[in-house]
Amino acid sequence: MNSTILTSINPLTNETYEMPAILDDRKAIDDFLKKNGSKPVVVVQGLGFVGAVMSLVCANALTEDYAVIGIDLAREDTYWKIKSINKGTFPIVASDPKIEEFYQIARAKNNLYATYDPYAYSQADVVIVDINLDVAKESNFYGDLDGYDVNLTAFRKAIQAIGNNCKEDVLVLVETTVPPGTCQKVVYPIIKECLEQRGLNTDKFKLGHSYERVMPGPNYIDSIQNFYRVFSGIDKRSAVATETFLRTIISTEKYPLTELGNTNATEMAKVLENSYRAMNIAFAVEWSRFAEEAGVNLYEVVRAIRMRPTHKNLMLPGIGVGGYCLTKDPLLASWSKQSLFDSKNGLGQSEQGVKINDKMPLYAYQFMKQEVGVDDFKGKKVLLLGVSYRSNVGDTRYSPVEPFYNYLLDDNAEVFLHDPYVRHWEEKEIEVEENITQVFKEKLDIVAITTGHVEYKDSHKLMNLLFSQDKLFILDTIGILTEEEITKLSEKHIVRVVGRGDIK
Amino acid sequence: MNSTILTSINPLTNETYEMPAILDDRKAIDDFLKKNGSKPVVVVQGLGFVGAVMSLVCANALTEDYAVIGIDLAREDTYWKIKSINKGTFPIVASDPKIEEFYQIARAKNNLYATYDPYAYSQADVVIVDINLDVAKESNFYGDLDGYDVNLTAFRKAIQAIGNNCKEDVLVLVETTVPPGTCQKVVYPIIKECLEQRGLNTDKFKLGHSYERVMPGPNYIDSIQNFYRVFSGIDKRSAVATETFLRTIISTEKYPLTELGNTNATEMAKVLENSYRAMNIAFAVEWSRFAEEAGVNLYEVVRAIRMRPTHKNLMLPGIGVGGYCLTKDPLLASWSKQSLFDSKNGLGQSEQGVKINDKMPLYAYQFMKQEVGVDDFKGKKVLLLGVSYRSNVGDTRYSPVEPFYNYLLDDNAEVFLHDPYVRHWEEKEIEVEENITQVFKEKLDIVAITTGHVEYKDSHKLMNLLFSQDKLFILDTIGILTEEEITKLSEKHIVRVVGRGDIK
Repeated sequence: MNSTILTSINPLTNETYEMPAILDDRKAIDDFLKKNGSKPVVVVQGLGFVGAVMSLVCANALTEDYAVIGIDLAREDTYWKIKSINKGTFPIVASDPKIEEFYQIARAKNNLYATYDPYAYSQADVVIVDINLDVAKESNFYGDLDGYDVNLTAFRKAIQAIGNNCKEDVLVLVETTVPPGTCQKVVYPIIKECLEQRGLNTDKFKLGHSYERVMPGPNYIDSIQNFYRVFSGIDKRSAVATETFLRTIISTEKYPLTELGNTNATEMAKVLENSYRAMNIAFAVEWSRFAEEAGVNLYEVVRAIRMRPTHKNLMLPGIGVGGYCLTKDPLLASWSKQSLFDSKNGLGQSEQGVKINDKMPLYAYQFMKQEVGVDDFKGKKVLLLGVSYRSNVGDTRYSPVEPFYNYLLDDNAEVFLHDPYVRHWEEKEIEVEENITQVFKEKLDIVAITTGHVEYKDSHKLMNLLFSQDKLFILDTIGILTEEEITKLSEKHIVRVVGRGDIK
Repeated sequence: MNSTILTSINPLTNETYEMPAILDDRKAIDDFLKKNGSKPVVVVQGLGFVGAVMSLVCANALTEDYAVIGIDLAREDTYWKIKSINKGTFPIVASDPKIEEFYQIARAKNNLYATYDPYAYSQADVVIVDINLDVAKESNFYGDLDGYDVNLTAFRKAIQAIGNNCKEDVLVLVETTVPPGTCQKVVYPIIKECLEQRGLNTDKFKLGHSYERVMPGPNYIDSIQNFYRVFSGIDKRSAVATETFLRTIISTEKYPLTELGNTNATEMAKVLENSYRAMNIAFAVEWSRFAEEAGVNLYEVVRAIRMRPTHKNLMLPGIGVGGYCLTKDPLLASWSKQSLFDSKNGLGQSEQGVKINDKMPLYAYQFMKQEVGVDDFKGKKVLLLGVSYRSNVGDTRYSPVEPFYNYLLDDNAEVFLHDPYVRHWEEKEIEVEENITQVFKEKLDIVAITTGHVEYKDSHKLMNLLFSQDKLFILDTIGILTEEEITKLSEKHIVRVVGRGDIK
């Protein structure tokens, strides 16, 4: 019962913000809107990886001038984002220079404000829903998925907050990845009921769905502003309103919009898209094992097959799948089929993709153990190059490096971590070294390349550092080393690559 | 014990050939080779869908002039092909005009001969192996795959026939889709042993592997001559010889060759390629069911997703997978992993693809039954449009229309068949009507479009015939009908499409 729950720390500036005792930001919102005159008001619900950047894109709309309000909860882990946006530091660090550029333009125009007060919804012409909808996976230490649960409670509450405050003719645009059927069976009835209870007309609000394909990284802004969009409305009016709005923020001439028949269809498109990708990755897993057994270089096999235009999507071997989408979307879909559409069967093959991918870090780890030829890493110093799940980005959400790291600890290894993009590994609550020379000052036994960062690719520096060590076991989990590098390194060290049985 | 086993009937000309009592064709082979002077000799083993056309491509090589001998067994079902080639009728009918063109050129040049006599191998500089290697699937009536077996006996025998006759410096080029490991663990030891037994040098023969990607249909020849090739050799000498040979028959400037590290790799590439495609098709199956349940048009969803360059391979719903490759290659691979590489596990996910696809005709059939709302089709006249498994080709091997047809018979329907490309449905031993006006003379109850032939696409004729009937139930199993056609047909008939829940 101390005061820590009443503060929120900004990890970017280390400032500590005291959280408001009474959640009333009405005056500041009114002031902000007054300054913005008659501009249409867009409220973005959720200031995470999607919402925060979506609010920038709306504040920098192509053919309209919006007053944009980002809204999130006043919680320890979110309140700092609200304060940070208003105080001059954008809460997301990314390699895309457009982020800072867009943020500074919005600051100069004074058309972006952040708040925690649901009063904002009452002023909105458009509300964009960008909150998370999580899947609770029940997995054991070895990545076996024993079960999972989709809990809509927080999502329903967020929609209620809109319904309890919004104008009767608002456009609610859902961007969150949801179980197919959610707009029709969850969002629409909630907003309708809220409006009824408030004695308002329930025939005027518009509900659209258009999923984002946001890619944190160097093309962060472009993955919203300059990319294909699929959309739908709960009815024709809603579809028209959604299209009209999207045309103001997206370069639709270059990236034409695609309208689908109903919201179930667009909701399905998003999870199908990600399930497909997850399954494609899973496909490479068992062939990696086969290649290792049969003395085959799976990378060259895949590249040879990709010559065929119909087989371009074939994926390469690797350490696993991370991030927020591919690790859960197939489960959202399967849950929906059974729970929202009362089907006897889920989507077994799509679920299978997640299950296989969840085991990838273990396979990579077992391959390493087998090739090192030990049962335990006691007394061994192991360096992991990369903890992020994606190349050239500092994103550790559901990173496959996490279980790989856990297995090493469990086998008593002393583990060192390097990542040029990650200072603090949130999930493990541990610091990560950014200086590669520093981590090589240790006398290492094993070096595993676990992320495909550009810093590890064709790197003279890394090669020199590896050569500066006594005999190492080097594991490339993602096929980043060139043939030349492997040949050279093999003169002194033992080199193994996941998915390659041709190196012995 | 009558004479019928000693004849072979040419289905193209209805000629009956008496099979030779003594399998000696030595004189004719010698005569043929004498006429061809010093040309290098290519023997193509197997005169099926691949070998017959491969022999044409070799006889019309781009940068070399070969004497080509096609060889097959003197069996009731194969002997006619040998005779037919020599008598002036090419044994394969296809829509590709190049087939006849290439055949006539070879006839004029007199550099193509067919035989049954293994003596031909003794004259060969190159032997191309194009025989089948089958998987015996154990499936029940409903397409559940209960087990399967790979029997190499016939394949070994064919390789022995080469080893027992070939020159010691022959190039044996395997094109057959084989379980990975076959060249290394089966073909190489057999030929070596045969040469040893014949007292010959065993260090001089060359063994290469390069899988074909033959596509019967309008681009039959081009799918060999103008398409990418992957190859390998059992050793460096073999790889060089294989490459040199392939360069003489393939347009390698436009379609560069890809060399892989060993024969396991190229053998794996072929079955991986087909497993990938089978899995991609299987992926659409459960989403079709979901779309049907959720009122979604899966076709428009897939088309919207395909806008993303990374998702171009996504497949559409359908009635199932047919043909010789996708229905078995994943099983060949899985068998190899366990039997040739002693792995504990097969390729579960890839096998799964076959299993799911094998059930597709049943799903399409069940969908139809559910939408018609009956348990039995007694007294109903049902027309199937298309029995071939591929559009615009008359190929009924493992056609998914076969089980669909079986289910209809089992449910007491009276079934009528139309296919512009199939006169005699070999697997069912039944005639197929080629005149579409003829089949519509019946008063029908149900019309199911089961193959995507161009004749059923945007066809005024078909629309008029459908309108000439009283109220029909029309099932489109492959999404060939346009929106406009569906709307128009729905004025009079009931229309349903597999993978579409938006039409009710």
